[in-house]
This record gives sequence, C-alpha cells and structure tokens, in this order.
Amino acid sequence: MNPLSPNAQAAPNRSPALADLAGPAPISIADREATQQARLQQVGQRPGTLNIRPGALKPRLFLMSYDDGTFTEEEYTDRYDALLAYLHQHPELKHWIDVRGYGDLPLIERMMQDFGLHPLQMEDVLNDYQRAKIDVFDDHRLFMVSRMTDFTANLEIDDDQLSIFTGPNYVLSFQDDYDDCLDTLRARIRSNFSTLRRHPVLYLAYALTDVVLDHYYPTMAAIGDYIEELEEAIFAERRPRRLLNRILRIKKDVVRFRRLVYPERDKIAEILRLPEETMPETLKIFYRDAYDHAIQTLDLAESYRDNISSLTDLYMSDQGNRMNEVMKVLTIISTIFIPLSFVVGLYGMNFQRDDGHGHYLPLNMPELYSPWGYPTVILIMGLVVATQLYYFYRKGWLTNR
Amino acid sequence: MNPLSPNAQAAPNRSPALADLAGPAPISIADREATQQARLQQVGQRPGTLNIRPGALKPRLFLMSYDDGTFTEEEYTDRYDALLAYLHQHPELKHWIDVRGYGDLPLIERMMQDFGLHPLQMEDVLNDYQRAKIDVFDDHRLFMVSRMTDFTANLEIDDDQLSIFTGPNYVLSFQDDYDDCLDTLRARIRSNFSTLRRHPVLYLAYALTDVVLDHYYPTMAAIGDYIEELEEAIFAERRPRRLLNRILRIKKDVVRFRRLVYPERDKIAEILRLPEETMPETLKIFYRDAYDHAIQTLDLAESYRDNISSLTDLYMSDQGNRMNEVMKVLTIISTIFIPLSFVVGLYGMNFQRDDGHGHYLPLNMPELYSPWGYPTVILIMGLVVATQLYYFYRKGWLTNR
Amino acid sequence: MNPLSPNAQAAPNRSPALADLAGPAPISIADREATQQARLQQVGQRPGTLNIRPGALKPRLFLMSYDDGTFTEEEYTDRYDALLAYLHQHPELKHWIDVRGYGDLPLIERMMQDFGLHPLQMEDVLNDYQRAKIDVFDDHRLFMVSRMTDFTANLEIDDDQLSIFTGPNYVLSFQDDYDDCLDTLRARIRSNFSTLRRHPVLYLAYALTDVVLDHYYPTMAAIGDYIEELEEAIFAERRPRRLLNRILRIKKDVVRFRRLVYPERDKIAEILRLPEETMPETLKIFYRDAYDHAIQTLDLAESYRDNISSLTDLYMSDQGNRMNEVMKVLTIISTIFIPLSFVVGLYGMNFQRDDGHGHYLPLNMPELYSPWGYPTVILIMGLVVATQLYYFYRKGWLTNR
Amino acid sequence: MNPLSPNAQAAPNRSPALADLAGPAPISIADREATQQARLQQVGQRPGTLNIRPGALKPRLFLMSYDDGTFTEEEYTDRYDALLAYLHQHPELKHWIDVRGYGDLPLIERMMQDFGLHPLQMEDVLNDYQRAKIDVFDDHRLFMVSRMTDFTANLEIDDDQLSIFTGPNYVLSFQDDYDDCLDTLRARIRSNFSTLRRHPVLYLAYALTDVVLDHYYPTMAAIGDYIEELEEAIFAERRPRRLLNRILRIKKDVVRFRRLVYPERDKIAEILRLPEETMPETLKIFYRDAYDHAIQTLDLAESYRDNISSLTDLYMSDQGNRMNEVMKVLTIISTIFIPLSFVVGLYGMNFQRDDGHGHYLPLNMPELYSPWGYPTVILIMGLVVATQLYYFYRKGWLTNR
Amino acid sequence: MNPLSPNAQAAPNRSPALADLAGPAPISIADREATQQARLQQVGQRPGTLNIRPGALKPRLFLMSYDDGTFTEEEYTDRYDALLAYLHQHPELKHWIDVRGYGDLPLIERMMQDFGLHPLQMEDVLNDYQRAKIDVFDDHRLFMVSRMTDFTANLEIDDDQLSIFTGPNYVLSFQDDYDDCLDTLRARIRSNFSTLRRHPVLYLAYALTDVVLDHYYPTMAAIGDYIEELEEAIFAERRPRRLLNRILRIKKDVVRFRRLVYPERDKIAEILRLPEETMPETLKIFYRDAYDHAIQTLDLAESYRDNISSLTDLYMSDQGNRMNEVMKVLTIISTIFIPLSFVVGLYGMNFQRDDGHGHYLPLNMPELYSPWGYPTVILIMGLVVATQLYYFYRKGWLTNR
Repeated sequence: MNPLSPNAQAAPNRSPALADLAGPAPISIADREATQQARLQQVGQRPGTLNIRPGALKPRLFLMSYDDGTFTEEEYTDRYDALLAYLHQHPELKHWIDVRGYGDLPLIERMMQDFGLHPLQMEDVLNDYQRAKIDVFDDHRLFMVSRMTDFTANLEIDDDQLSIFTGPNYVLSFQDDYDDCLDTLRARIRSNFSTLRRHPVLYLAYALTDVVLDHYYPTMAAIGDYIEELEEAIFAERRPRRLLNRILRIKKDVVRFRRLVYPERDKIAEILRLPEETMPETLKIFYRDAYDHAIQTLDLAESYRDNISSLTDLYMSDQGNRMNEVMKVLTIISTIFIPLSFVVGLYGMNFQRDDGHGHYLPLNMPELYSPWGYPTVILIMGLVVATQLYYFYRKGWLTNR
Repeated sequence: MNPLSPNAQAAPNRSPALADLAGPAPISIADREATQQARLQQVGQRPGTLNIRPGALKPRLFLMSYDDGTFTEEEYTDRYDALLAYLHQHPELKHWIDVRGYGDLPLIERMMQDFGLHPLQMEDVLNDYQRAKIDVFDDHRLFMVSRMTDFTANLEIDDDQLSIFTGPNYVLSFQDDYDDCLDTLRARIRSNFSTLRRHPVLYLAYALTDVVLDHYYPTMAAIGDYIEELEEAIFAERRPRRLLNRILRIKKDVVRFRRLVYPERDKIAEILRLPEETMPETLKIFYRDAYDHAIQTLDLAESYRDNISSLTDLYMSDQGNRMNEVMKVLTIISTIFIPLSFVVGLYGMNFQRDDGHGHYLPLNMPELYSPWGYPTVILIMGLVVATQLYYFYRKGWLTNR
Repeated sequence: MNPLSPNAQAAPNRSPALADLAGPAPISIADREATQQARLQQVGQRPGTLNIRPGALKPRLFLMSYDDGTFTEEEYTDRYDALLAYLHQHPELKHWIDVRGYGDLPLIERMMQDFGLHPLQMEDVLNDYQRAKIDVFDDHRLFMVSRMTDFTANLEIDDDQLSIFTGPNYVLSFQDDYDDCLDTLRARIRSNFSTLRRHPVLYLAYALTDVVLDHYYPTMAAIGDYIEELEEAIFAERRPRRLLNRILRIKKDVVRFRRLVYPERDKIAEILRLPEETMPETLKIFYRDAYDHAIQTLDLAESYRDNISSLTDLYMSDQGNRMNEVMKVLTIISTIFIPLSFVVGLYGMNFQRDDGHGHYLPLNMPELYSPWGYPTVILIMGLVVATQLYYFYRKGWLTNR
Repeated sequence: MNPLSPNAQAAPNRSPALADLAGPAPISIADREATQQARLQQVGQRPGTLNIRPGALKPRLFLMSYDDGTFTEEEYTDRYDALLAYLHQHPELKHWIDVRGYGDLPLIERMMQDFGLHPLQMEDVLNDYQRAKIDVFDDHRLFMVSRMTDFTANLEIDDDQLSIFTGPNYVLSFQDDYDDCLDTLRARIRSNFSTLRRHPVLYLAYALTDVVLDHYYPTMAAIGDYIEELEEAIFAERRPRRLLNRILRIKKDVVRFRRLVYPERDKIAEILRLPEETMPETLKIFYRDAYDHAIQTLDLAESYRDNISSLTDLYMSDQGNRMNEVMKVLTIISTIFIPLSFVVGLYGMNFQRDDGHGHYLPLNMPELYSPWGYPTVILIMGLVVATQLYYFYRKGWLTNR
Repeated sequence: MNPLSPNAQAAPNRSPALADLAGPAPISIADREATQQARLQQVGQRPGTLNIRPGALKPRLFLMSYDDGTFTEEEYTDRYDALLAYLHQHPELKHWIDVRGYGDLPLIERMMQDFGLHPLQMEDVLNDYQRAKIDVFDDHRLFMVSRMTDFTANLEIDDDQLSIFTGPNYVLSFQDDYDDCLDTLRARIRSNFSTLRRHPVLYLAYALTDVVLDHYYPTMAAIGDYIEELEEAIFAERRPRRLLNRILRIKKDVVRFRRLVYPERDKIAEILRLPEETMPETLKIFYRDAYDHAIQTLDLAESYRDNISSLTDLYMSDQGNRMNEVMKVLTIISTIFIPLSFVVGLYGMNFQRDDGHGHYLPLNMPELYSPWGYPTVILIMGLVVATQLYYFYRKGWLTNR
C-alpha cells in the first residue's frame, strides 16, 4: 500500500442522496457555513495578519521530484529541513511540495520566508475561504486558488481550497485536509510513461487545476441523481418529510456550485490573457480546453437550476392536487349523504294525524301511512345516489384525476 | 436505391407529441442525459486522452469527390487505405470524407496522424458533448463543431454532434450515428447543376453548417405543435396524467434548445470576424445569412418559452378553477340541504303535549297538531330552496363560471 | 375615387377588443403563426433559392414619379416592360416602384436581373418573415426591411413585411398584401406642396420607415384599450370565458410587439452610424427623430407589459377571493345550522320515561315534558343564531369584504 | 403678492394617499394616459409638423433679466414684440424667457423664427411626451428636456415637460402649465445676493435641471408614505376595497418614475461627456453633483419597488390566512357538532321492543329504557367536546394563528 | 480607561434577532428611513448649501499624531485653535483628525476654510446619506465616503457615513455619531510595533476603509443567524406573529446591504485604476485585498438573498400545508359521520305499520321490528367506520403528512 495516499479508496461516485431520502438527516436551507465563516473573520486586524483557524490539522509535507527519467516520492512531515536540503541538492528536477494541514504557524512562517511568499497571499491560503483566483508576480511566478468540491451525505457541497504557488522548478501546494481528489494525478506522475513528466513544471500547476475541474463532474452527477430522486418523491404516495426543504436545499447547492465555478472560469480566462513570457502558448492550448470544461460545467449547473425550479413548481402544484383530492372526497360524501339525510329527516317529523282532540288531520304526512311508503323512499334515494355517482364519474372525480 | 444514404426516408415533420399525449410515455423533467454525461467524464485523466465510448458504432467511411464537371461517390468502410490512395491520386478534386461512427480507436488514431489533427480536438470529437464552436489553426485550417437536433417521441431533444475539419481541398466530417440530416445536401452535391460544386471546398463546410441550422426549424415546429396540444389539454374535460410534468418537460427542451443554438450563433459571429485569408468575404455573405437564421431560431425559442410560461400560469389557474368548482358543488348542496335538515329535525323533536301526569302542555309544538302543518312546512322549504337557487344563479355559480 | 388605393377606408382606430370580449372568438396563446412559419422553411435547400409561398398574390405594380414640379402615378400591373421603358425615359424624375404581391416568380426574377438585386436579399423579401434590418451595398445602395403591424379582431398582431431597395433615383418596395398602411404617405406625395418631393429619393425611403413606425401607435392604442377592458372584466360579476387566456394572449402580443420593434430600433441606430456618403447628415436628423419614436414605442410596450403582469396578479388574487367567498357562504350556513341541527336532534331522541316494565324514569329527557320546553328551545336557538350573525358581521364576512 | 407666481402656495408635502384610502377614488392599473397619448399621435404626418394639442393653454410670457447687480422681471403675455425689443436693447444682461402654455401656433412659429429653433425640436416641445434628453447644436447651443413630476390625489404620477433652449445670453424655457415647481429658483434669482446671478447663463440651465431633480424627492416621499399606509391596510380588520389594485397601482407609479429618471440620469451623464467648449469644467462639477442625486433617486425607487413586491407577497399570504381562518371556523364547528349529531340521531332511531305481534325484543335499544340513559349520553357528548376543544387549542386553532 | 474611546465595549457579535422573535417589536417592511430622508431633502436650494440636520450632535475633535517612533493622542473638543496650532508645529508627523458630530456650523465652515474643502463635498459630508464614493482632486488629495453598518435589535441595518479627506500629512475624518467601529484601528495605531505607523498617511485612509469593510462581516453574521431562526420558526408548532413580515424585513435588509456594498466595491475598483502619483502601487496591493473582501461580502449577500427567497417559498408552502391539514380534519370527520348520520336518520323515520285505519302495512320498515335490528345496524356502522379509517390511513391522512 502506498503510504502517501492516506485514503485513496475515497469513492467519488457514491450517491449520498439515496441514503438521505430515507434517513432523518436534518435538512436546513440556511447558509450555516457562510454565516460561520462571516463570524470567524476578525474585525479590524492588520491585513496580512496570519491566523491559524482553531482545530487546523498539523501539516503533513510530501515531496514528489521527477523529470523525464527520474522519480522519487517521500513524506517529509516534521522534517522540513530535510525537504529544503533535498530541494537544494536537486535543482535539475521538478518538485511538487504538497502541504496538507495548516496547524503549525512557525512552520508556515518559515516557508513564507524560504519560498518568498507575500503575507497577503499567505493570509488567503490560511483564510480558507477564497474565491478561485490567480495573482501574477513581477518575476512571472503565479499564485492560484482553486476550490475542490465534494457532495456530502448531508446534501451539502463541501468545498476545500487548493492554493498553488509556482516557482522556477517547483509547485508548492497547500490544502486544509489530509484527503483530497488529487490521487489520480499522483498516479499519473508516478507512471513511467507519463507525458506530464516531460512538460515544464508549469504544466503540473495546470494539471492540478484540471483535476479539480474534472472533479466537478462527479459532484454534478450526484446532484443530478438526487434531483431525479426528488422528482420521484414528489409523486410518491408517501412523501418524505420536509420535501420542499430538500428541494430548496439542493437548489442552494447548485447556486453555490455556480458561484464556485464562475470564478474558476474567470481565472482560466485571465490565464489565457497572460503574456507569453508568463504563460507560454503551448500551455495555453490546454487551458483553452479547461475553459471549455468550465463552461460545460456551468451549462450543466444552469440545467440543474432549471430542473429544480421545475421541481418547485411541481411540488406546489402537487400540493394543490392533494388539497383538491381531499376536497373531492369531502364533496362527494357530503353531496351524496346530506340530501339523503334530509329525506330521512323529513319522514322523521312528528306531524300527527290526530290533533289531540280527536280530529283527523289527513294532510299531515299521509306518506307514512301508505303501504308502499318506505320502499318508495328507499328507491328514490337509490336513484338520487346513482345520478350523483354518474355525475361525479362524468366529471372524472371518482378516478384519481 | 442509393446505398450511401442508409435511411433517407427519415421524416423530419412527424409530430411525436401527439402520440405521447395519449400513450403512457414516462415523462421526467430531470436532466438524465446531462447527469449521465457528467458521470461518464473520467476524472484525473491526461487531457487529450482518447476514450471510445462503450457501444460506439463501427466507423463507416464515405467519400464524395467533385469539381464543376466531375463527381464520384463511394463507400470506403474497412478500406481506409484505398481512400487515402484515392485522395492522393486526385489532388485536383474537392473531397468530402464523411466518417460515421467512432468505434475503432486504431483507425481514429491513423486518421489523426494522416490528417494532422490535434489530440485535444480529436478528444472533442469523440467526447461527443461539445458546444458548437470554431477553432482556427495557424495554417488557416478550421475545426468546427455543430450540433444536429431532433425531437424524439419521448419529448426529448436528441442532439448529435457534427465535427468538421477543413483542409486545402477536403472537408473531413465526423459524427456518431449512421443516420443524419445531411441527405438533402448530398443530393445537392450529386446534382449536375449544383452551384455548390463550383464554390471552393470551404463552401462545403458552410453548407454543412447551414443544413444543420435549417434542421432546427422542424424541431421547433414539432415543439410548437406540442405546445398547442398541451394548451388544449389544459382545458380538456379529462386531462392526461402528469400534465404539468409535460409542460415543464417541454420547457426544459426549449431551454436546452436555446443553449444549443446560442453557441452556434456565437460560432457564426466568430466566423464573421475571421480575417480575409482564413474566410474570404465572398463566403462571409452566406454566413451573414446563416447568422440571421440563427437569430430567428432564437427568437422563436424565446417565443416558445413565453408560451410555456403562460401555459404554466394557465395550468395553475385552472387547478384553482377546478378546486373552485368542487367547492361550489359542496357549498350549493350544503347550503340548500343543511337548513332544510334543520327544519325537518325541528319537527322531529319529541316535545310532548302531555307531561306524563295528564297535564296538557299546549305550547309544546302545536304545529304538529295543526291540520295544515305538514303542507305548510313543505311549502316553506320549497320557498327557501327557490330563493337559494335564485341567489346562486345570480352569482353565476350554477353555470360553469 | 382613387383607383390606386384599393381600400383606403381601412380604419386604424377600430377597437377589435370590445367585440371579442363579448363574442366567442377562439383564444389561443400558442404561437401558431410562428410554428407554421417554422414548418414552411425548407430544409437543406441552397441558400438564395427563391420560393414563392403557395397562395401568394399576383403582383400588382404601381409607379409614382415625381420631382418638385412634376407628378405622375400609374398602375403597371401586367405591363412591366412599359414600366421599365418609362423609368428609362425619365432618369431626371424620382420614382417609387411599388410592388404588392409576390405570386409571379418569372417577374420577380426579371426584376432581380434588371435592378441588380442579390438572390440572398430577394430570398429575404419572399421569405416574408424577416426581422427589421438594413444591408448596405458597396455602391451605397440600401436594402431595408420594416415590419408593418396591425391588431386584428382575433387579438393577434398581424405583421407584414415591407422590403425596400434604394437606387440612385428610385425606391423599389415589395410587400405581400394589396392593402397597406402607406396611403397617407401616398397622399403626401400627390400633394403639390409636399416638401417630400423636394428632398432626394433617399428621403422617400426614410418616409416609408417613418410611416411604418407611426403605425405602431394605433396598434399600441388598441392593445392599451383592450388591457383596460380586461381589467374591468376581472372585477365584473360575470367574467367572460377564458379570461386568463385573454390576458396571456395580450401579453404574448406585447412581447411579440417588442420583439418586432427592437430590431427596428437597432436598424435605425445602424443607419445613424452609416458614413456620410451613404446617409447624408441632413437625413440623419430625421432618423434621430425616428429613433426617439422607436424608443418611446418600446417604453410604452414595457408599460403595457407591467400592466399585464399586474393583471395576472389581480386575476389570481380575484380567483382566491372568489374561492374565499364560496367558502364563507358554506361556513356561515354550516356554522349556523349544524349546531341547531344538533339541538333539534337532541330532542328527537327517544329516551323513555317508562322502561317498558312500568318503572318511571324521571331523568330521561324531562325537558320534553316541561310546559315551556319547546318555546325555550326555540328561544335558545334564536339567541345562538343572533350571536353567530353578530360574530360574522364583526368579521366582515356578511358584507362582501 | 408676487403677480408672477400664479400659485406659489402649491404644497409639495401634502399626502394625497391618506385621503384616497378612505375615499372612493377609481383605482385603475391600466396605463390610460399612455394609451391616450398613443392615440393622439397622428399617423403618416410629415415629421416636424407642429400640432397644438386641443385644449392647450394660451401662452403666458415672463422675462427675468439679470446680472450681478441688475434685476428686472416682467410679464410680456400678448406683448411678444416688446419682449424681443427688450432683449435687443439689453445684450449685456442674462435673460430667462419663460413661456408657459402652447396654445398659440403663430406665436410659437414666430419664436422658432426669431430664436432659430429647429422644427423637429419644436415638435418635441409641443408633443409634450418626450423622454429627458439633450441635443447639442453645432454652435454649442443646447436643447434639453426635463420631466417635472407630481404625485396626485389619484395616486398618479403627473409629469410635465420642461423644455429648455440655451443661447449665448439667454435661456428659453417652455412648459405646458401655468403652475410649476420652479418658484424657489425664481426666488433665488430675485435675491440680491444670489451666486446664481454671478454665474454665466448656462448655470441657469443647470439650476433648472437641478430644481426638477430636487422635486423628485417629495414625489418619492409621498409614494413612501402611501406604501406604509398600504402595509398597515393589509393587516387591518377591514381592508379597503380593491387593496391589491392600489398596491399594483403604486407599483406602476414607481416603475414609471424609474422610467422617467433613467433618461434624466443618462442626460446628465451625456452632459458630463460634453467637450469643454460646450460645457465648461466649472459647471460640470455641479452636474456631477446632480448625477449623484439622480443615482440616489433611482436607488430609492429600487427600494420602493422591493417594498411593493414584498407588499404583494404579504397581501397574497394574508389572503391565504383569511381563507385559513374561514376554514378553521368551519372545521371546528363541523368537527364538534357532526359527531354529536350522529349520537343524538342514534337515539332518535325507532327500533321497537315489541315486534307488533307481542314479542318482546330486548336487544333493540335497551339504552332508551335505562334510568340513567339520557344523563349518560349528555355526559359522553360533553367529554367529546372537551377533548376536541383541547385538541384545537393545542393546534393553536382557537387563538388567531 | 481610555478617555478617547467613549464606548469601546460595543459588542459586534450580539444577536439581536433572538430577542425579537420572542418580543413584540413592530415589524414593518416599508422603507421608513428612506422616505424620511426623501422628505428632509430641501427643494430648490442652491447646490453646496450646508444644512445642519436638526438634532445633530455637537462636534468632538480628536487628534492622533504619530510616526514610526512618536505617538500622541488628545481630545481637542472646543479647542480647535489648539488643534490647528499643534498641526502647524508638527509638520513632520502624520495626523488623524477625527471629528465626530456635525452640530456646529461655524466650526465646520472654519474647517472648510482651513483645510481647503469644497462646499459640494462638505454638503455630501453633512447630507449624511451618500453612497460610498471617491473624488480625486487635482492636487492628488482624495475625498472618500464609506458607510459603516450595524444590525440593530429592530432588525434594521443602521448605517452611518464615514467621510475622509486626505492631505499631505493628515487624514481628516467626519462622522455623525460619537460611537463607531474604529476602535480596533485606534488600538493598532497606539501599539508601539504597528506597521501602520511606518506606512505613509495614505495607508491610514486605506486602514479606515478596510476596518469598515471588516465590519460588514458581523452584520452579515447577525443576519445569517436570524435567517436560521426564521427557518426554524416556519416549522414551529406555534409561529411567531407576522412571520412573513419578518422574512420580508430581513430580505429588505439584505437587499439594502447589497446596495451599500456595491458602491463600496466600485469605489475600490476606481481606486485601483488611479494613477501611480495619486495612489502608489505599494498601497494598491492592499486595496486589491480589500476588493476581494468586498466581492466576498457581496457573494455572501447573494447567498442570503437566495436563502430568504427559499424561506418565502417554504412559508407559502407551509401555509398551504396548514390549510391542507385543516381540510383533512374536516374531511375525515365529515366523511365518517355524515354517512352514519344518514343511517341513524333512516331508522328514525316514522313509517307506520298501521295506516290508521287498522290495515297492517308489512313493508314499512320491518327492520324496526326485527329482534336483531339494532345490533345489526350498530355492527354495520362499525364496519363502515373501520373501512374509512383504513382508507385514510392508506392515504397517509391520519399521520401528519
């Protein structure tokens, strides 16, 4: 087993949605995460002040060094000096310094010093909620932020930040978690025949961006699956609880996803406008491809947004249909039995044929004294019911719509 | 029969909608296709990797060679070498190499080699979901993607990709299916007097784009027909099941259609901005015409979108009307019979004229002992009913709205 | 009577709406016309192919020739050669060749030849659904398309195309119908003191555009009247059938109108940007005025759109109010009589004072044997009703809101 | 009293809204004014034709002449020649020629002649519904249109047009009414220490624009007050009639207001882009201030629009709440009494203990012969009612929501 | 205690929302503040006239003077001359003149004189409702307006204006209140090791803008908390009164917040476009960071807006659900008891076995004389009830949705 990929078995295609529709997951549409992020922000601090978020993981350091023919890979956690030394010994190789976890301020500050990183950008790295963006330095070095997405079992889009600094022969990447979505890329580097190892180190920065972009598809697919389940749930006999909540929750996710990807697209567009000396034309061809991907992802997100808005319409209309159905039951029962009740009430009246003084009153309810009175009334009531049922059948009220 | 047009009898004007309203077609508004496409995308692969979709058809190769006076046409399936040889023998002719089906990776790779196609673009060809676009090479060769649409019996817009590479004296087109919408164009090339054969080969590329654009109209017409049927269905006595679903489904189609055509329009606008050496002014006149067509198609799509949004309003209002109608039936019946039931109940009370001890109680329900009691009550009840019916008639509740 | 104006008595101010609200006109919101137009489009034809629509009228040719002092006017139907001859004889005059009806392909083709018209533009003329636009030729000749609108008794916006070619000393106009909205302009040309006759022939092209623009106002006024009628209809005791349909129909018209006028505005904006040699500054002043008119028409259309959206809200709310009213009637009647029915039912119970074995049961309904039982019950029921009526009055349920 | 200010006591702060909510004002949301204006437009007339609207007021002419030290003010109604003479005698002064009312075509035509005004612009002046705009002449003279607003007791925005021509030493202003909102400006000119009199005459044109802009605030304030009243009305026990109509009416006003102010803002933006020789930088500073005002007015209008859309939501929801309340009353009454009625009906059945042939039937309703039968039934019914009331209380149905 | 920070204990993190949901705070969605502001505006005044709002606080003057090594801080309220003298004595220091309160026109006018401030800008300072903006003077001095926000217990966004003038070695700031959100910044200046004291004085202006921006986060967090509470309230058994009002109120706040922040973003974007001599590149780096913050704040506001619109949907749907529930109770009770009432009514009929003349009528209700009549009827009714309950259970009506 490869000790460098802590949990390579993360399954990107699982559908967390299915589980949720059955289970009692708390579904909230409020943007809890955004609110918390807003609260963490420290007011009035000097810009460029580095704050380590409480609970940040201890940094693990990984190094991949390669060129066309060579490849070494090692974990340097707690051995930063050894890492530096190795870098100095091998200026001819391309290096990917892969830092996961921020929970060690002195180390972070040493790295800023050693790699010449600007405090404002380091603040962006640690702040951990930054839109995708690119900053270009005077010496053509780049600082790029990407956002890696995942769709959790709670129907939330979990997004982590991947921050990349490029140097002449290295790429320095920071992220918050130990797990990420870059293992396929690591495998490609390890492969002997990878064209990636032949390209300049800037291509590695591109490949990182591209892998992140590729990971948007499984997120989208999971959302798409969930939308289908929701549609079925609307028409199911027994709806899951808080169905509209779920629909609005997924809408929120799609909107959030769009807001994640738009800056990504803009970032790539900005890269395409960089001058030749910063970003050579041979690499721009690849970014053009990535740009098309970003656009297609946004297209998909738009599709989903339309779908969800249709779901809301369906839900509302179905709510109306259910009300309609309830009303129809009430109306059919009432319409049939209320007149009948009147009829039987009519012949329950106590009008007397004798006024108590011996006078015969022949007009008071002679029906009650007719030999065929009762059967006739029963027959009439039967006819009324039959007529009504026929009327309701014609209206289509007896069948379900 | 022409062996080159596998099913020339495809009828573009059939109305699949009609069948569907009657039949039990499963109507889903979720974007299944988009989701599946999202899932197919392979994560973390090297860009430019060629993947043949499982189930792709075996490629069939067709060649049309022509100039003003000459015309030959032949199928070269499984005879790619013969095709190449023919091309080399006839550099003076214009050639349309027409590849249908992608299911043969070695052949695709040989063609990339022989025609100098870039892996990223070939990936776009095979990936098979690409927005309409145009790429221009340094040597003025073009790569164009168009999307051919069809409106299926399932109310889905079925869109296939047509990818075109142009060369100095050939057009190389790729598509996924054996059937397509290009047969009228083939007939025009075959015709002795076609002006198409006099134009340079770039005009063939234009003609392909134009035929695809023209095919948007039948799709639109089918959608338009279906919208009319839906409108009638809203007011029909017995609505088809899941009517709102159908409305939202067709809305989704129109939205998708717009999303297909917008890039097409942008593609043509980009062509119109190409320099003279890449796209001569004499051809641009035709593209300007195509641009007008694209705009008109979009206008139509906008019209349909408005129509569908009106349909949704109508549906919702009609749902309200049906509820109203149910309530009116209930209210009329209840309002007439509940008071009557009270009256007959009143005279069903058992107040006694004799307190059981021989005292006569003259105030207890003397009506029951009146000679005209029963007829009077019947008359009063008749008057109440008549008054109520008149009131309801005045309100317009008895007529249907 | 002037033989050249076939029906000069067309009344632009009639209000077709009024008639319709009463009558049984079929109101559809589907865009039938657009659909049919989409179906007519012939797929895969060579661009620039001229198709005469089946049922097109036989062309009538009219000629007005004028300069400051001279004026002649004649119909040349079936005498195209005489027309041509006259034009050649009088190069010093300005000519308006006014062609109405397209139903004669050979004639159309001869005119294309004689006047040097491009097939693509002639296709636009005959195609008969073209957005307003302007094309400029290298020799400064212009091709302009305007759309003339009318508001028919079916609540449809009927729009016809007016296509204009300008030449050095003539304007050549095509339209589909024999009737049009240009008679006031013809009268102005006939008038001895018309400034129009002093201006260059390009001014005639402007005047044609301007008259079409002016005709948008009566269309708007008719729509505006209809909107007012619809508003009154919403609150009328007896609504006309399919009221929402009518509202949505008129909305569709306004939206369509906007879509007609926007290109018109863009066309004029394009004219304002033409170089001096194509469009002299002295004429642009007039087009600037026309531009303001177009903007104001669009403003009005926006106003109407807002009005109609308010109408929809009103309709929906009124639908709710009607339901509310129905429910109130039901609730008042039920709330009053159901408790009363209980009371009278109570005293209809048959509890006996004698258990059948001669035992006296004094607790079983002694009220029935009280001398004041019946009057007391009647009184109590009267009080209950009075209390309820007061409660409903306080709630405002007895008055109509 | 100043004879030059016919009704200086116009109170801009009155709240017409209050009156209306009580009174029976006819509330229509249709854009009657716009429709009428559309109908007035004369079709097919020569552009630049001057039409005096029937009922236009007879023009009154006022002149203010001033410079730093001098000031004269006089009414020249019916003495146009004297006005002209005075202007010629005092070329060293700055003049404001203030024309109110258009009802004298010959006078208007003489002024066009004397001041060199273009027919098309004069048509704009008289046409009286023109968006705010600015035209610049070759000799740097300006033609500006502003729209003065007022909020009438009928909840309509009444807007009048103020047209301004500037000349080297005069400003010539036209308006339709005798009353206007410019009296504060007149007072400033009259004041001895007004900085206005020191500025060039172009500053007067600015001051006119600025006063009109300032007048938007009271209109906005009146609308704002009315919105507050409407909100209270929604929750009032007895709503005024056609409340939604009123809400939509005020929405229409706000939308119309925005449509008035947007061109005003664009006009000022265009002024800010004028070259130095037409509009000196020293004046532009003031226009920049006016620009900020216009933006703030639009911000306010946006705020109001949001408020009104919230009002509509509230209204709709309140309509639902009222329905809910009605239904609750019905449900509570029915749920309590229908079961009770069943019970009492049960013991109203006539099952006999004697089959008529002397057989004793002990199973037929022995309860009726039990000594505690009636009290037990009463008790049971009491318990049922108590349970139901407790249930309804728990649901919160007994309290008002 | 620091005498210069009047109430440093203002807690930005309190959640006023919680209190409100319980309490009887008056919730209005009308834009009272905007209306009042509109009414305060004085019509027709000369632009640049300074008006002190009635009730404005007496100005307090504070001075902080610092450079890298020095720092002094003093309150100069009522000692403006001493302040001026100190400034002249120490041209080598950087000064922050911090004016709080406007209620002293002569002092304001002296400051305008002494610091060379333009009347129009001073009017903006005092007017107190100005969008965020920046004006640049010819001598590179700046005038900036920021808006400081707070979220009050009344659910209103309270925003105060901070106006900043920069000079060669000073920053002059004006605000309306004694309390503000700048105390953290003051603390940073006081700190011996503040990098702020090493930067040029323009950095202080930046720091002021940045602190204001940072303060948007707590406002957002409070709004976010409140949104969560509202969501819970929707599903609570007993909703707080006027819940929709509260939702719409918070929507209004978010919309208003966006309208506050957009100009702030535009202001910063404008700063980023300033020439090097006005704004050096070394400072622009910080503004770029501030720009990112502004964008993120707007992103959050968009998120909240979506959340609130979802809340409205939820509320409406829940209203429908509650109605549904009411109707179900009614329907279940009616459907069960109305048929039963018919049955018992049936056997309450008085058809006689003896016609009064001694004839036996065996067909009249023989059931009443059957020995098992009563038990059979009871049994049948029990079966009917059981069937109905099963049906309702299957429909899911007995459980809550």
